[in-house]
Amino acid sequence: MKVFKTIDQFRQWRRNEFLEARSVGFVPTMGALHAGHTGLIDHAKSENDSVVVSIFVNPAQFAPTEDFDSYPRSWETDKIKLQEKGKVDAVLLPLIAEMYPSGITLDVSQQQGTFVHVQGLSHQLEGKARPHFFRGVATVVSKLFNIVQPETAYFGQKDIQQTVVLKALVRDLLIPTTVRVFPTLREDDGLALSSRNAYLSPDQRKHANALWRGLSAARDVYLSHKDSSRDEILGAAQKIIDEVSQLTQCEVELEYISMASPETLLEVGKAVDGTILSGAMRIGKKGQLVTRIIDNLILES
Amino acid sequence: MKVFKTIDQFRQWRRNEFLEARSVGFVPTMGALHAGHTGLIDHAKSENDSVVVSIFVNPAQFAPTEDFDSYPRSWETDKIKLQEKGKVDAVLLPLIAEMYPSGITLDVSQQQGTFVHVQGLSHQLEGKARPHFFRGVATVVSKLFNIVQPETAYFGQKDIQQTVVLKALVRDLLIPTTVRVFPTLREDDGLALSSRNAYLSPDQRKHANALWRGLSAARDVYLSHKDSSRDEILGAAQKIIDEVSQLTQCEVELEYISMASPETLLEVGKAVDGTILSGAMRIGKKGQLVTRIIDNLILES
Repeated sequence: MKVFKTIDQFRQWRRNEFLEARSVGFVPTMGALHAGHTGLIDHAKSENDSVVVSIFVNPAQFAPTEDFDSYPRSWETDKIKLQEKGKVDAVLLPLIAEMYPSGITLDVSQQQGTFVHVQGLSHQLEGKARPHFFRGVATVVSKLFNIVQPETAYFGQKDIQQTVVLKALVRDLLIPTTVRVFPTLREDDGLALSSRNAYLSPDQRKHANALWRGLSAARDVYLSHKDSSRDEILGAAQKIIDEVSQLTQCEVELEYISMASPETLLEVGKAVDGTILSGAMRIGKKGQLVTRIIDNLILES
Repeated sequence: MKVFKTIDQFRQWRRNEFLEARSVGFVPTMGALHAGHTGLIDHAKSENDSVVVSIFVNPAQFAPTEDFDSYPRSWETDKIKLQEKGKVDAVLLPLIAEMYPSGITLDVSQQQGTFVHVQGLSHQLEGKARPHFFRGVATVVSKLFNIVQPETAYFGQKDIQQTVVLKALVRDLLIPTTVRVFPTLREDDGLALSSRNAYLSPDQRKHANALWRGLSAARDVYLSHKDSSRDEILGAAQKIIDEVSQLTQCEVELEYISMASPETLLEVGKAVDGTILSGAMRIGKKGQLVTRIIDNLILES
């Protein structure tokens, strides 16, 4: 497993893969690796000759109020996990200064340089809570794809809007990379694996699966009666999360719950197979550390 | 010379160039080819194994009020010129629907899909007269680079802000392509070659070199006294264009004249070697066809 801290050195390695006609699968990450990431590495290795993992906590996708500084960074642990995995050929650990040659500040109004925006898919759902988040994601993924030039890139369904945005990015900009999406990995109680779960106290952790339980209940309503109304479906989710919210004296709070089209990510009145149920939930008392939990599922009979 | 009307067929040709380790030089154009374009082809051929020319009139860089519909399209003549040149290996003539898979309308507020914006270099000079022009340019060039994957791309200095924007695009997005810029080619009287010169009436054509004569006079002021003030330098250009404007009863009108930094494209108070003098001039009576002439030079002792 080769570790590259400069883009130039990585490009030399990549050039050799081209010359030897070896296909490259790519798993971009922000580090703090868990089984969700290593599962994607398994898929990448089974479909490609070589696997590249990048670890880069991307400033452009954090708002000034968010957790850029405190986001978990654990390269030594990550490195051991990747080595044990034994399936990664190259790790790219680029510096912020190399990734943002025109500089980068978290204040969007002050930013200079090149940014990539996917209009129509970036303003709703997660984009409503985090207005410049997908601009940051589309920009950094454009950069990473230009460096790694992968045949295929691997993403988890947990960030489902991200996967829709990135598929549009690749299609619109005619990037010669295929985006593959794999199901969310979960703890035994259903909580989706996430690097930010590390923020949860033991007590918060007990209630953190409320969003998943809510989404699952909403799915059950759809599966039992396909003609269920939007209110009946989403109401089932809302009810479960409200109960937990009361139980925990508002330490758990639903941020949004959505039933949306997989193509436009706009809200729909009627569910069909393929419709996305998604939501975000906050855990933590105001004034203290608040953790956002996001989750989703795709309706399927 | 192979001509490709679909991106897939072009990509097959490109794949073979990769496998044979042949370097590719790229000259993106909007067609209506003149000696400025064929000069860039000469440079591309002298520096690469293969040369690709694209011809695509890019809707995203035209405002609804501009000449997208009437922009000169002359593929049959262009094809003969390219064949006679004998230096072009592949021509890419993509369809709008393939270049804009999410669709494209000239009304920016209605646009959907992925767009690339170079902040800080797109709002001044030409970007002031044409607010979304460089967003359109950066977006289409990103797409073309992802299709053609050239080692080197060739541009004329005539569109100097475009070259600064595209160099920033390539640097910021870490695109593995080198941007090369070559001097503007000119008619005997100094008028910069441009596809839009075809719009000029014989009488307008006689006065069309006023901008270049103005810029040259401004340069002479700088060269004779390095300490000349901004007003002295730009005043020399203004004077010549004003004279022509009076002579032609305002059929010729200066739009702007600029003395700017080559890095930031912001106006400077003091000229030094490397400073860009540029301007835009309109020819044509109001209510009739108005043609914009742009030109520039880089100060150099």
